[in-house]
Amino acid sequence: MQILSDHKMFEGHQRIYLHESEACRTEMRFGLYVPPDVDAATAPILIWLSGLTCTEQNFITKAGAQRKAAELGMILVAPDTSPRGDAVPDAPDAAYDLGLGAGFYVDATQKPWDQHYRMEHYIARELPALLAQELGLGSAQEGSGKMGIAGHSMGGHGALVLHFRHPDLFKTVSAFAPIVAPTMVPWGEKAFTAYLGADREKWRAYDACALVGTYKSTAHILIDQGLADDFLDSQLQPHLFEQACAEAGQALTLRRLDGYDHSYYFIASFIDDHLIHNARGLTGATG
Amino acid sequence: MQILSDHKMFEGHQRIYLHESEACRTEMRFGLYVPPDVDAATAPILIWLSGLTCTEQNFITKAGAQRKAAELGMILVAPDTSPRGDAVPDAPDAAYDLGLGAGFYVDATQKPWDQHYRMEHYIARELPALLAQELGLGSAQEGSGKMGIAGHSMGGHGALVLHFRHPDLFKTVSAFAPIVAPTMVPWGEKAFTAYLGADREKWRAYDACALVGTYKSTAHILIDQGLADDFLDSQLQPHLFEQACAEAGQALTLRRLDGYDHSYYFIASFIDDHLIHNARGLTGATG
Repeated sequence: MQILSDHKMFEGHQRIYLHESEACRTEMRFGLYVPPDVDAATAPILIWLSGLTCTEQNFITKAGAQRKAAELGMILVAPDTSPRGDAVPDAPDAAYDLGLGAGFYVDATQKPWDQHYRMEHYIARELPALLAQELGLGSAQEGSGKMGIAGHSMGGHGALVLHFRHPDLFKTVSAFAPIVAPTMVPWGEKAFTAYLGADREKWRAYDACALVGTYKSTAHILIDQGLADDFLDSQLQPHLFEQACAEAGQALTLRRLDGYDHSYYFIASFIDDHLIHNARGLTGATG
Repeated sequence: MQILSDHKMFEGHQRIYLHESEACRTEMRFGLYVPPDVDAATAPILIWLSGLTCTEQNFITKAGAQRKAAELGMILVAPDTSPRGDAVPDAPDAAYDLGLGAGFYVDATQKPWDQHYRMEHYIARELPALLAQELGLGSAQEGSGKMGIAGHSMGGHGALVLHFRHPDLFKTVSAFAPIVAPTMVPWGEKAFTAYLGADREKWRAYDACALVGTYKSTAHILIDQGLADDFLDSQLQPHLFEQACAEAGQALTLRRLDGYDHSYYFIASFIDDHLIHNARGLTGATG
C-alpha cells in the first residue's frame, strides 16, 4: 500500500492510500482519516460510501466529517465508487450512472463488467482485511462490533445493503438520501440490468427494501432525506423503505428535512448526527 | 444580480451570485452564506479572500465554515480571486501565479492588466456597496464596525492589506498562511512587477509589512501558520510581519502550528477560531 497524500487535520491525519486490488483487478484508492491519540487496534471505524460520479475525494473534502470524528475518536474510511483504470470497462456513452463512478456496490455477474466491478467483495472483504492486516485497525475484523457503514445516494444504497448482507461486519448503518429500492427506479434498473443481468429476481439480493424482510438487523437505522432533493420522487422514494421496515419490525428513524437538496451542503449540515449515531451504536459514546 | 445556485445549509442558505462588475469590467461571482434567523440589516459580515488558483467555490465547499457561522449568526462572503472572461487578459503561459486566479487584491496600473484587474476597488468599494444596497446587508457600510476580513495565502495578504488600507470598512482581520511581505518574495515580485510596474517604491502600498508601520489598526490580528507548509520559507516568512508588528505596536497573535500544511485541510482545522476571533471583534460574541 502506498500513501499518496497525508494532510494533518484536526490534530489527526487525512491520508489517501493506493493499492493493487485483488477483487477489482486494478489499482484502488481510499481515504483514511485517523483522529489524534486513538488506539488503532480498538478505535471504532465508519466506512463511508459515496454516490454516483464521486471518487474517494468528495467526502473527505466536502462533508466536514473529520472535526466530529476527531472528537469521537472514530476512524473514517472513504473508498472510491468503482474500479478505474485503462483496463476497466466504462459505459459506451460514458454515462454518469453506469460504469466508472457507478459501481453500485454489487459484484457484477455479466460481461464486460464481471472482471472488475466487484465492489461488494472489495468493500466487505478485501478492504476490511487490508485495514486490519496492513494498517492494524482491529475494529475492521468481522465480529468486532466496532465498524459501521454509512453513505449517500448510491452509497446510501450500498450502506444499507452491505449492512443487511454483512451484519456481523457492519454493526451500525446510516444514510443520506439512499436509493432504497433500486429494483424499482431508473438508476437501479439500468445498473442492475448491466451488472446482474435481465433476471429481476436476482436483483433482490441488492435491494434494501427486499433485504429488510429477509435479514434481521440489530441496528437502529438512521436516514436523512432532504425534501428539496430533485431525485426524491423518481429515484429515492424513502417511503418504500419506511413501509418495509414497519412490516419487518426494523427500527428506523427517517428524518424528512425541509428545504435540503441532494448535495454535500446537505450532508455537511447533518454529518455530525450520523457520526454520533454510529459511534453510539459502536461504542456507547454519546458525542 | 443573479442567483446562480442556492443550497440550504445548516438551516441557512449558501448562494452564488453573478453580477456585472463596474470595477473589473466583466461578470464577477461571489459566494454568500446567510445563517438562519439573522437580521440582514445588522448581522456581522466576514469577507473571505481566497488564494492563488481559487474561485468563489473553494472556501464554501472545503473550509466547513458555515457551521460555526450559523451558530454565530455571521454572514460569509467569498468573492473570486480575479476577474475572468474572454476579454480578461491572462498570463501568456497561463501561469498559476499571475493573471486569472491571481488578482492579488490590487488595482493594476500597467497594461494589459489595468482595464480589468482592479480587485482592491472591487473588494473594498463595489462589493460592499452591492451587499448593502442590493442585498440589504447593513454591516457592509463603511463605519458600521461590523464587517471583518480574512483570507488564505494570497488572500491572507489581501485581508491584511485591505484592512490596513480601509480600517473603517474592515474592522477585524485574520489570516491563514498569508503572504505578509509580497515585495520581498517571488510570488509578490512577479505579480507586482506585472500589475504595478517596475518602481518598487509603489509596491509598498500593498505590502502588509510596510503598511503596519504607516496605518494604525485597532484590531488584534490573528494569523495561523502551519509549520509543514511548503511555502513557509520561500513565500510566506511570517517572522517578517511579527517583527513589523512588534516595532509598530500592532497587536498580533501568530500561531505556529506543528505539522499543518498549506491546504484547506489546515484551514478547516482552525476556521472556527477565526470566525470566533472576528465575531468577537465585531459584536463582542464569544462563540
